[in-house]
Amino acid sequence: MKNKNSLSLRFENNQLFILDQQLLPHREVWIAVESPDHMISIIKALKVRGAPLIGVAAAFALANFAPHAKSPQDFLMTAQKLKEARPTAVNLMNAIDRMVLVAKESDYNSAAILQKAMGLYDEDVDLCERMAQTGAELIQHGDNVLTHCNTGGLATVGVGTALGAILKAHHQGKNIHVYVDETRPLLQGGRLTTWELEKAGVPYTLICDNMSGVLMRAQKVQRVLVGADRIALNGDFANKIGTYNLAVLCSHHQVPFYTVAPQTTVDPECAHGGMIPVEEREDHEVRGVSGDFGQVIWSPSQAPTFNPAFDVTPVSLLTGIVLDGAYFSRSALQSGELKKLKMNS
Amino acid sequence: MKNKNSLSLRFENNQLFILDQQLLPHREVWIAVESPDHMISIIKALKVRGAPLIGVAAAFALANFAPHAKSPQDFLMTAQKLKEARPTAVNLMNAIDRMVLVAKESDYNSAAILQKAMGLYDEDVDLCERMAQTGAELIQHGDNVLTHCNTGGLATVGVGTALGAILKAHHQGKNIHVYVDETRPLLQGGRLTTWELEKAGVPYTLICDNMSGVLMRAQKVQRVLVGADRIALNGDFANKIGTYNLAVLCSHHQVPFYTVAPQTTVDPECAHGGMIPVEEREDHEVRGVSGDFGQVIWSPSQAPTFNPAFDVTPVSLLTGIVLDGAYFSRSALQSGELKKLKMNS
Repeated sequence: MKNKNSLSLRFENNQLFILDQQLLPHREVWIAVESPDHMISIIKALKVRGAPLIGVAAAFALANFAPHAKSPQDFLMTAQKLKEARPTAVNLMNAIDRMVLVAKESDYNSAAILQKAMGLYDEDVDLCERMAQTGAELIQHGDNVLTHCNTGGLATVGVGTALGAILKAHHQGKNIHVYVDETRPLLQGGRLTTWELEKAGVPYTLICDNMSGVLMRAQKVQRVLVGADRIALNGDFANKIGTYNLAVLCSHHQVPFYTVAPQTTVDPECAHGGMIPVEEREDHEVRGVSGDFGQVIWSPSQAPTFNPAFDVTPVSLLTGIVLDGAYFSRSALQSGELKKLKMNS
Repeated sequence: MKNKNSLSLRFENNQLFILDQQLLPHREVWIAVESPDHMISIIKALKVRGAPLIGVAAAFALANFAPHAKSPQDFLMTAQKLKEARPTAVNLMNAIDRMVLVAKESDYNSAAILQKAMGLYDEDVDLCERMAQTGAELIQHGDNVLTHCNTGGLATVGVGTALGAILKAHHQGKNIHVYVDETRPLLQGGRLTTWELEKAGVPYTLICDNMSGVLMRAQKVQRVLVGADRIALNGDFANKIGTYNLAVLCSHHQVPFYTVAPQTTVDPECAHGGMIPVEEREDHEVRGVSGDFGQVIWSPSQAPTFNPAFDVTPVSLLTGIVLDGAYFSRSALQSGELKKLKMNS
């Protein structure tokens, strides 16, 4: 059996290992995943995150459980529990649904189920590679690229989405520099994107989310690339909170603004951004921060907060979307190209 | 000798006490200021902050030093050191210049010098009251007001500037609600403005700085009020980093955007915003956070950062400026009203 080895997920001799992202960037600790319940607790604690990565990780956990399932019912109930580990991750639901389909079709053959998990892994690597190729074409020599959240090898099992394109441009020798939004409240930029860029040797500067405007005004940002959690058929898209502020700032300063995502992110059931539900998370994330140091609260301990995990950016503020292998400009999006794409797929 | 007693500065029996703002909101610790050097270290460590408050605090520290000065030179050199404790806010420089003027005019009479510090205190209280009156008139019944940083009784010795106007509107029974930008990296909103609003019983919601756009898009913000650290004669102004992002967002969403400041914030030597020097601060502030819990670093320990303490907002993005007792609309500012004001003063 072939092993798999990504930046944040390893599958070696049938043992699944997950890099604990809560301890990054200061400690690199790999967790040996013992069971689906263990995987669920890892997902809920955000030790693994990034929609594509969660999907593949859950698929491997389910595949490893298959030989031990007491019955098809036991397997299906476990699959359902994994699927519900995070409510908004469409990729997680997709991945588990596809695993279950193979299980049923193969009469719960453990080898076939594991093969499917391997397939989901390889598929994500391929999708990332194609996005990176297309996305890197948008980046010019000498660019300062600003990005938000983490969209690299800690969010996928491949090179990533937006960060994958940035890393590809670097490897192409384009002499780029990256401004990294720290991405409050969970600091995926400050903790994870910085770590990935250091590992890859890409020059970067960490900024607070409220500093992007002055950089743009000083013409120090040539383009902005972000990921997407869900894309509506009209080109509106949901992404990590703070993306919309960036989009408005880009529009004001005429800085090109792109989102990079796999085609599976386009939701054929979703006509426009107003239909995308936005998860609201707990107060303590805004009241302070937690990490390898534990939890710190700097505001009044009962401070009322607003804590949407995502925001929705209208297509009118976008320069374009990179899907795996294809680029859609705003005008293409506004003339309904995503709808055609989904009708043909 | 009369004592002084504000939310964050006390002068009692010739002893100056400063509320340690680094320990708020969880601990209220008063520091007995021992010398000008001690005051400078308190200013640099941001234990005292807020342009008007720093000015008054430094003035009292200088006044207390006057009886111990070995010579006029000693006094003047000490004044100069205090003046240079922070570079951007003009209030500190103004306050010290005025103290020095009185010292020279009085032949370094300690009583006259202390009297001047008292006068600066009373003047700030009066200025705040007039700003609050004028600013509160801009706030309507039922408004959701968004504010940035801290501009209240922890930034002045009176009721504050922007936050003073907000508190005044609340006390007028206008049934307002305040969105508080946490204000990375130093979290003056999350730590201090929340603390003041809780003390005053004003309903508020704490947000991360990257959440303001979605609130504006959902029409949940009726106006934005911020302070100012320096105002140029053409109406451009410097304020806490993140103000410029807010100004662009307000412009995009047609949300009225005001700055509230004392007249002393207008710098007659400064024709436009491009002439305002912006202090850049240390990496560790962006790499993590410090507070009563000590220091926490969540990004790579050597992460390169960009950390301007302030940004400059062009008058074109402003709805208007509240100076003590007077309101200047954008068109008034653009037709040179501030220049006339300063020529007449």
